[in-house]
Amino acid sequence: MKSPLIVAMDLEGVLVPEIWIAFAEKTGIPELRLTTRDVADYHELMTHRLKILKEHNLKVQDIQEVIATMSPLPGAQEYMAWLSARYPNVIISDTFYEFAMPLMKQLNFPTLFCNNLEVAPDGTVTGYKQRLLDGKRHAALAFKQLNFRVVAMGDSYNDTAMLAEAHLGLLFRPSDKVRAQFPQFPVVTEYSEIQSYITEFDRG
Amino acid sequence: MKSPLIVAMDLEGVLVPEIWIAFAEKTGIPELRLTTRDVADYHELMTHRLKILKEHNLKVQDIQEVIATMSPLPGAQEYMAWLSARYPNVIISDTFYEFAMPLMKQLNFPTLFCNNLEVAPDGTVTGYKQRLLDGKRHAALAFKQLNFRVVAMGDSYNDTAMLAEAHLGLLFRPSDKVRAQFPQFPVVTEYSEIQSYITEFDRG
Repeated sequence: MKSPLIVAMDLEGVLVPEIWIAFAEKTGIPELRLTTRDVADYHELMTHRLKILKEHNLKVQDIQEVIATMSPLPGAQEYMAWLSARYPNVIISDTFYEFAMPLMKQLNFPTLFCNNLEVAPDGTVTGYKQRLLDGKRHAALAFKQLNFRVVAMGDSYNDTAMLAEAHLGLLFRPSDKVRAQFPQFPVVTEYSEIQSYITEFDRG
Repeated sequence: MKSPLIVAMDLEGVLVPEIWIAFAEKTGIPELRLTTRDVADYHELMTHRLKILKEHNLKVQDIQEVIATMSPLPGAQEYMAWLSARYPNVIISDTFYEFAMPLMKQLNFPTLFCNNLEVAPDGTVTGYKQRLLDGKRHAALAFKQLNFRVVAMGDSYNDTAMLAEAHLGLLFRPSDKVRAQFPQFPVVTEYSEIQSYITEFDRG
């Protein structure tokens, strides 16, 4: 008899837009558009971002207000409603709870594994903490050790270790580069395709 | 800086009534009231239960219809809404997805780790599979290994290993026997007390 199935998903690019890019657009601060493609070192990038937030005097509550005006990707809400009625699922992201919660609300508060910001009493963002190195892969591994069959999906480089660790890994709307470099993962572009893959995998 | 907090909860007795007892009452089949207190061996008990379901010609869809008429414990829905807006949380139970899903719906589909029944094409329940031995403790351990601070709560013997593994373990409305045998765990009887413990622990 088969073990139960769990679905592990990346957040940004899969269920919601890239938060920093959308935030840069909403606030009109173009320097916040920088991503790991522009600044390879994650700590350097985050330090840069926190500096800009400070320069613009953006407190955590201001940031949350802006993020609350963003929306999940079209179809993401319906997909999550479908999924949560059928399978346990966890969103695994490198983002921060303080940023993601307004978007989680619009997805009906699924379980999210991510990181915490360090916030001063007045709301100034003073730092951040990565919960775990290689946290996405470790989460998929933990679910396997708990005897789940794991379906994982993501859109970029930092998801591929999780996809490889899972029993079934899916690339959702990846860049051409990621797609070319990881031909072993099926590519899906619509939520209905994810649903088909999950249903098939559960049956098979 | 502190790691993020996750809440791991037992289901029956904590958020919903004991499913088999409520099911026995709803169906008027008293033999289904037997629990691990009456039959110590879990496999023997489950074999007995499945035999009775078969004798009464209860298919999985009949069982789900009955369970759909049950309700979460008073206050559980409000507590889960409070919790899910604030902290990642997972329900960890020895029950079966096929039984629990109608109740999960009423709790807004939180993430549930439990087990699967084996169901024939006509809906006859032919068997079951325990996902993991000592699964509750292993789940708390997995969350710790993913660098979460873990708050766990449960009501009975089979929860105590999870409570011991967690950073903070709470007994929710335990029997006098469990309470006396595990004096190391704080006892809570209201959801508001759980909220206070979680908020305090997160702050502390």
